[in-house]
Amino acid sequence: MPMLQVNLLRGYNSELKSRLSRVLTAVISGITRAKPETISVWIDEFDSDNYSRGGQVRQPGPGAADPETLVRDYLTAMEQRELDTARRYLSEDFVMTFPGSGDLTSLNQLVEWSKGRYRFVKKTVAAVNVAYEMGEVVVFVNGTLSGEWPDGAAFDSVRFIDRFEIRDDHLVRQDVWNDLANAQA
Amino acid sequence: MPMLQVNLLRGYNSELKSRLSRVLTAVISGITRAKPETISVWIDEFDSDNYSRGGQVRQPGPGAADPETLVRDYLTAMEQRELDTARRYLSEDFVMTFPGSGDLTSLNQLVEWSKGRYRFVKKTVAAVNVAYEMGEVVVFVNGTLSGEWPDGAAFDSVRFIDRFEIRDDHLVRQDVWNDLANAQA
Amino acid sequence: MPMLQVNLLRGYNSELKSRLSRVLTAVISGITRAKPETISVWIDEFDSDNYSRGGQVRQPGPGAADPETLVRDYLTAMEQRELDTARRYLSEDFVMTFPGSGDLTSLNQLVEWSKGRYRFVKKTVAAVNVAYEMGEVVVFVNGTLSGEWPDGAAFDSVRFIDRFEIRDDHLVRQDVWNDLANAQA
Amino acid sequence: MPMLQVNLLRGYNSELKSRLSRVLTAVISGITRAKPETISVWIDEFDSDNYSRGGQVRQPGPGAADPETLVRDYLTAMEQRELDTARRYLSEDFVMTFPGSGDLTSLNQLVEWSKGRYRFVKKTVAAVNVAYEMGEVVVFVNGTLSGEWPDGAAFDSVRFIDRFEIRDDHLVRQDVWNDLANAQA
Amino acid sequence: MPMLQVNLLRGYNSELKSRLSRVLTAVISGITRAKPETISVWIDEFDSDNYSRGGQVRQPGPGAADPETLVRDYLTAMEQRELDTARRYLSEDFVMTFPGSGDLTSLNQLVEWSKGRYRFVKKTVAAVNVAYEMGEVVVFVNGTLSGEWPDGAAFDSVRFIDRFEIRDDHLVRQDVWNDLANAQA
Amino acid sequence: MPMLQVNLLRGYNSELKSRLSRVLTAVISGITRAKPETISVWIDEFDSDNYSRGGQVRQPGPGAADPETLVRDYLTAMEQRELDTARRYLSEDFVMTFPGSGDLTSLNQLVEWSKGRYRFVKKTVAAVNVAYEMGEVVVFVNGTLSGEWPDGAAFDSVRFIDRFEIRDDHLVRQDVWNDLANAQA
Repeated sequence: MPMLQVNLLRGYNSELKSRLSRVLTAVISGITRAKPETISVWIDEFDSDNYSRGGQVRQPGPGAADPETLVRDYLTAMEQRELDTARRYLSEDFVMTFPGSGDLTSLNQLVEWSKGRYRFVKKTVAAVNVAYEMGEVVVFVNGTLSGEWPDGAAFDSVRFIDRFEIRDDHLVRQDVWNDLANAQA
Repeated sequence: MPMLQVNLLRGYNSELKSRLSRVLTAVISGITRAKPETISVWIDEFDSDNYSRGGQVRQPGPGAADPETLVRDYLTAMEQRELDTARRYLSEDFVMTFPGSGDLTSLNQLVEWSKGRYRFVKKTVAAVNVAYEMGEVVVFVNGTLSGEWPDGAAFDSVRFIDRFEIRDDHLVRQDVWNDLANAQA
Repeated sequence: MPMLQVNLLRGYNSELKSRLSRVLTAVISGITRAKPETISVWIDEFDSDNYSRGGQVRQPGPGAADPETLVRDYLTAMEQRELDTARRYLSEDFVMTFPGSGDLTSLNQLVEWSKGRYRFVKKTVAAVNVAYEMGEVVVFVNGTLSGEWPDGAAFDSVRFIDRFEIRDDHLVRQDVWNDLANAQA
Repeated sequence: MPMLQVNLLRGYNSELKSRLSRVLTAVISGITRAKPETISVWIDEFDSDNYSRGGQVRQPGPGAADPETLVRDYLTAMEQRELDTARRYLSEDFVMTFPGSGDLTSLNQLVEWSKGRYRFVKKTVAAVNVAYEMGEVVVFVNGTLSGEWPDGAAFDSVRFIDRFEIRDDHLVRQDVWNDLANAQA
Repeated sequence: MPMLQVNLLRGYNSELKSRLSRVLTAVISGITRAKPETISVWIDEFDSDNYSRGGQVRQPGPGAADPETLVRDYLTAMEQRELDTARRYLSEDFVMTFPGSGDLTSLNQLVEWSKGRYRFVKKTVAAVNVAYEMGEVVVFVNGTLSGEWPDGAAFDSVRFIDRFEIRDDHLVRQDVWNDLANAQA
Repeated sequence: MPMLQVNLLRGYNSELKSRLSRVLTAVISGITRAKPETISVWIDEFDSDNYSRGGQVRQPGPGAADPETLVRDYLTAMEQRELDTARRYLSEDFVMTFPGSGDLTSLNQLVEWSKGRYRFVKKTVAAVNVAYEMGEVVVFVNGTLSGEWPDGAAFDSVRFIDRFEIRDDHLVRQDVWNDLANAQA
């Protein structure tokens, strides 16, 4: 039953507005238990000379990148070992942690660390979930890993989950959990 | 800069409305990159005889439980082995998976399975994140485990993450990852 | 899909607001072909010190009587020949026309005119429709008549329609059509 | 004093929006007794990517034909005996009733039935009223008939009223009352 | 024709809201040339738990004193030489200027300065005008002075205007012009 | 914290809308004591076929001239003794009063009157304030005068204030106060 009206400065693209509507609907539904199909969202766009704050006309910002797309693109680049591409998604102070790795602060460090662990690894994604926190966006990716152990033996169906923190369209943190240790044991 | 107006039927409590405002603000901020302090949310509440859909007056629903509180309460009950309390948070078709456990469908099964693995385990929560999906809410809890191995030796600082799916105020799925296998190795 | 917000001064009763919502929904649906169940109406009520026009606070009016109820009550009073009651529904300049009667301006005139036509007549209402015109409300009642001819013979299933014009909660005009002449022939 | 805001998907033409405003104003005025000149209607149009229900973008419908125009066009076609044109306004299950005719289900049937009754008949319309019901629109046309009896004698000033039910831009029912029997007697 | 909706936190009194509506109407009318009687203002009041900025619930402020009342009360106190009362309306850094006085920073200074100028003076107010500037309110009072010269001779109809700057409900500046020098010459 | 939504017919230019937003913000801030930077103003513009009053579509008016600009342009024309230009800003019944002048009704009268008073005079404007009253706009200009006395001696830093009443984009009244008499004495 709820109705949302969102006043925005004009300039965001259709994909962003559609994503915004979907997430707002999911939030309203999740918190009020109203069924999504009874929730309507109206986005009212205003030219910049029709909005002021403190009596001053304001300019619209660019909007954030889709966090799911950002994370998927990063994961694809990593899987294909396109490190230069992958690095573009990282903030200056990016930190990542894998099972047993401690904090790693560069992709080179990660590549070095993973050498003795597997020849290669591929992710099959089961679900991506995005949590919007005040000031940052947290993306979770879970599914299964397949690949080859250092001795060439294959493995698959190994559960994993990645947790990414995003600020200003860049990854600031990646935390990885998986069952590789169990699988190897 | 964005402004949200939410039309709701009157009857939700202050905590729910405040939570709704915070999450909506975080979503708008996360998607548009507007700073939270420039985002205002106005909740306009309507008596049920002031709202109609299809020309029919509608009654407000009860609102959903706070998903973070629900998950924390469940984890507390489990940690204290208050299984009867814990069971009240579970749906009929609840399924859980731990590293190496496969699908478990009852808390008794879980208790049985974990016997040989540790004497007890305690969670120190670092972060809880809530992702609102259409039709379900997904809650992530990550942090570290401490406890005792079967031989009485203590362990701590073992990373973990739990992923919970919630529907209709009940947990339908729990997926757990942790570094216990690494820690034991 | 359409959404209506109606700003009203506080003070109208629930029945009136509910009727207003239903009629507005029917109008929106009839003109846009949107299905009624997708149309929501929000009535936002304002205390009189929260509304001004021309900078002046305004007082709410009393609201109009339900035109269908008004007409049905008038018809009941007439059927039961409670002329004093019926007269209260009429404006000063009320005029009525029946088949072959020409303009009649008082209920006494009507009673006189109808004497040779039937001993009594009863209405079975099939439908009441209300048309809102700028400045007046027009109510249509159609169905069948039953009763007795002057010779005591019974008749029934004689089609009729009444058209009433209402201004300021009073009937200003009644026009009647029926098949009594055909039935008699 | 009331104020209406109507949120619509963009795409309805000026005539429809103007008609919508007029009817909404008449309804509000008729129900609250506020004077029409104090009632304002604002139609806020939204591009389809700025509206969602259930998180899904929706497309605007075509809008309904003006019911008064539809009925007048049908009556004109019938008066000129352009039956093919007239038939385009009728639904599959169209039914009509004239004084003494019983239910007629085709225009041919009507033409046959009316043959012995008059050579031709013309309508002078005094008023058209439109009542919006949930799921259908009912149009009333009243005025006077003029024409020639089978023997060539002229008649005029014979009162009539037509009641039309419209669904999905087609007539589903026409009920006719008039004083022809009285005039002939 | 314009319509204003003002969202406010609940808690301002009727007088303030009525004054707000009048001034907003005058501003809209003065800038758009729409006639005041076509301008409606709706004040929508929200409980503090129904409004958030930056996801935080906000408390309503107290509202400012009516600037015209504040200035009139100060002038009355001065006319009656109730200096203690008058002082309560002044900010710490209050400055005033009269014709030929230069800057005076205390009421005592003013009383001293005016001694040789007149025995007493009374104001007849013709008009009070309030100009709302960003960050301050400027009040203008004009009319005529009457009183007695030091020699006991009476004077009247001497034009004057006072200009007051108000910040945080206190006078920060008073500038006075009048025709006393012309009258004396 | 307050939020204003202004519904306007489309057609006002950016400068007017920006001025409107500034003045509305200043009014809201001045009356509620909310800080300007927490006040947002949204101007929602409607095509004329999307607005009706009394069921009738309305045309937007032209908007008023900026009153500060109007007054400054008039003062500039007067200072440069471009009387024909200055006259275009005056209403038919324009009246002005200077210290000791009584009511003057034409610019020629003013020029005549001022002849013996100074050779020329120039204004240095310190502040312009605009007060919006219901039905008229009042503009105040204060600052200092410099110029030459009839004997050629220079003067400067003489305080002045002008009060202008504007209706329908024309000056209807000018009242002037200054310290020239004091300066001369």
